[in-house]
Amino acid sequence: MGKPAPTSPFAPASLPEVPSIDGVSFATAQAGIRYAGRTDVLLAMMAPGTTVAGVVTQSKTRSAPVEWCVSQLTHARARALVVNSGNANAFTGKRGVEAVEMTAKAAAAAAGCETSEIFLASTGVIGEPMDASKFTGLLASMAKAAKPDGWHDAARAIMTTDTYPKLAHATIAMEDGKTAELAGFAKGAGMIAPDMATMLAFVFTDLEIAEPLLREAVRDAADMTFNCITVDGDTSTSDTALVFATGKASERGIAPIVDPGDTRYTAFRVALDTVMHDLAQMIVKDGEGLSKHVTISITGAENDRAARRIAFAIANSPIVKTAIAGEDPNWGRIVMAVGKAGEQADRDKLTIWFGPHMLANQGERAADYDEDTAAAYMKNPEIEIRADVGIGTGKATVWTCDLTHGYVSINAEYRS
Amino acid sequence: MGKPAPTSPFAPASLPEVPSIDGVSFATAQAGIRYAGRTDVLLAMMAPGTTVAGVVTQSKTRSAPVEWCVSQLTHARARALVVNSGNANAFTGKRGVEAVEMTAKAAAAAAGCETSEIFLASTGVIGEPMDASKFTGLLASMAKAAKPDGWHDAARAIMTTDTYPKLAHATIAMEDGKTAELAGFAKGAGMIAPDMATMLAFVFTDLEIAEPLLREAVRDAADMTFNCITVDGDTSTSDTALVFATGKASERGIAPIVDPGDTRYTAFRVALDTVMHDLAQMIVKDGEGLSKHVTISITGAENDRAARRIAFAIANSPIVKTAIAGEDPNWGRIVMAVGKAGEQADRDKLTIWFGPHMLANQGERAADYDEDTAAAYMKNPEIEIRADVGIGTGKATVWTCDLTHGYVSINAEYRS
Repeated sequence: MGKPAPTSPFAPASLPEVPSIDGVSFATAQAGIRYAGRTDVLLAMMAPGTTVAGVVTQSKTRSAPVEWCVSQLTHARARALVVNSGNANAFTGKRGVEAVEMTAKAAAAAAGCETSEIFLASTGVIGEPMDASKFTGLLASMAKAAKPDGWHDAARAIMTTDTYPKLAHATIAMEDGKTAELAGFAKGAGMIAPDMATMLAFVFTDLEIAEPLLREAVRDAADMTFNCITVDGDTSTSDTALVFATGKASERGIAPIVDPGDTRYTAFRVALDTVMHDLAQMIVKDGEGLSKHVTISITGAENDRAARRIAFAIANSPIVKTAIAGEDPNWGRIVMAVGKAGEQADRDKLTIWFGPHMLANQGERAADYDEDTAAAYMKNPEIEIRADVGIGTGKATVWTCDLTHGYVSINAEYRS
Repeated sequence: MGKPAPTSPFAPASLPEVPSIDGVSFATAQAGIRYAGRTDVLLAMMAPGTTVAGVVTQSKTRSAPVEWCVSQLTHARARALVVNSGNANAFTGKRGVEAVEMTAKAAAAAAGCETSEIFLASTGVIGEPMDASKFTGLLASMAKAAKPDGWHDAARAIMTTDTYPKLAHATIAMEDGKTAELAGFAKGAGMIAPDMATMLAFVFTDLEIAEPLLREAVRDAADMTFNCITVDGDTSTSDTALVFATGKASERGIAPIVDPGDTRYTAFRVALDTVMHDLAQMIVKDGEGLSKHVTISITGAENDRAARRIAFAIANSPIVKTAIAGEDPNWGRIVMAVGKAGEQADRDKLTIWFGPHMLANQGERAADYDEDTAAAYMKNPEIEIRADVGIGTGKATVWTCDLTHGYVSINAEYRS
């Protein structure tokens, strides 16, 4: 492996302090799966009765742990989560399935539950057979050592070549002045050499929520957050986001949330959206080699789906991303990307802004276009690109980063 | 503008000598549209009775000259082609349309024909109003100076930041030992700073061919050649490929081709496929900053369309392209790309080869996988990646190049 990539310019100065969440505890360990001198296994233990909902990669070549989670999510009960970094256990055939089963069995024994209550995620290199025995023997002692205040350690243990840990937290107001907690951590998207990177996110709350409501909230939140970020348009075989609700808040007199009309359900959804939004932004702000964080907003498209496709056509265009790296207000490349998105568009109704500056409208350069003003805007670390398609009411916002020499260096480096 | 990019390692040592083609003559000029000290306008003149067929970009934001050509192709008669480099006349609104009309009028006067027989193409920067008067005044004297043997000059005049001119030729055997000629030139794909690059290709033959047959031959040839190459997955607003048939060969006793069952039609199609294939390869071998030429072949997909989408998912993946630049046999990234293509696939039936080396099969690393052998293969300048999806009979081949620091440098450079 080459030298580590420089820390993202958007890395936060410090990690947030996150309170304990009733019914959740963590332990981490160094199993030496791939990385030396750092933790690479996480065990999260949840109280009996914990409900889980989640979303996983749409890849047709998804990993054995992802397939395991999909099967487990059908009954939505969880007691423990095991995450390893360094090996994705993807494209590992029958041995991959065996490694999953071996891990689930060891975790169930350690947590004192059924294997059907175990969730698993792996991130790291693809196609390398994974020796799960490197960490299955550690799980029993990890279960004994698990502590409720292990948030920082947990966020660090799931990193691969993320340049900073990603952790977010919200307190949710409930009835009678009571509060519930919601917190989660994630690891980065984008393909970080020497690994096939993966987006993993795990969120925990002490609320008790009916499983259909939890499922709906997670699906909707993921759609507006994790599904709206892109580093390079590539899709990992291992992407997994899980939200666990321990229900322990009911012991403090907070009633279960079972009615979609309950205002507390709305409060939970707002908190979940916020935490997942924050984690998604931390992920995209740790894109390999980035120098700019980019927000792309589309309005006036045929419908929301069309708006999102146009936004992603811009966000994933190598020539748009390199222009941003070069601080070039090259709005012609936005025209190109809108044109190639395959969605309805009318060149002569298209308007483009970079930040507050309108650069193009009605099919040509804006009358008061000023190259110096636009170029000065591009010096900002946070760039906002907006395009109005001018034909409907569809809208979408997605987030990405620029494409730099750093990206090429990181991804062209030989794996070993 | 920054310094010019280094010449592609795949640049041919010399340009082919192409014979005159009856009914075709060329003139070039320096109009100073954007580039200094080089030709930037091409006038191609064709004999009365010339038939034309073509394909253009699928972009929804296509340029004024492209829209002009689409309209002209409906009647398929051509007498002259004007191409300028340096300004794409794209996203230039009403002024763009006016520039097109002004150019067509001047060209028609120069060539002594109707504006409906004029074809136009522009390549260069987007969104910059184009002052067509810079070259319309030159067309009359260019028409007088046009010569049949101007192939090399013609190929050079349409370049933007292509690092070499692209020219290909075939002689076609006809009845009674007679021969017809087919030749064409092209400029590069991929987005070459400071311009929005564009794929342009113009092919000429002296054969007389019924317009429906010419149209079918061009569409099919483009589909297997120009539509199977990608540098960065971006789509220009200006892509145009036109094939002109002057019919002058009939004066040498070569009968018109009017019957799809005519074996001479097959001979023409083979020649057209070959010339367009050669031009397409020259384009992809001049991708910005490339160090490798990459052939991606998919077999065993659900159908040919699915195979092509999978091939392009691999060809356009930034992490696949950077791995190739790094000479890393990272077949896990091929698994990723197959998975994200959105086409039917079964992880456990997927087989992957790099050149002659099988790296993965039946859902895991190949039993006799040898990292050193695979790494040694990646040192080749020409890389062949093959994947068998294992579920059907669909197949496709596409061509691309790697993604290097050179690409980022070229595209992140400021335009002016």
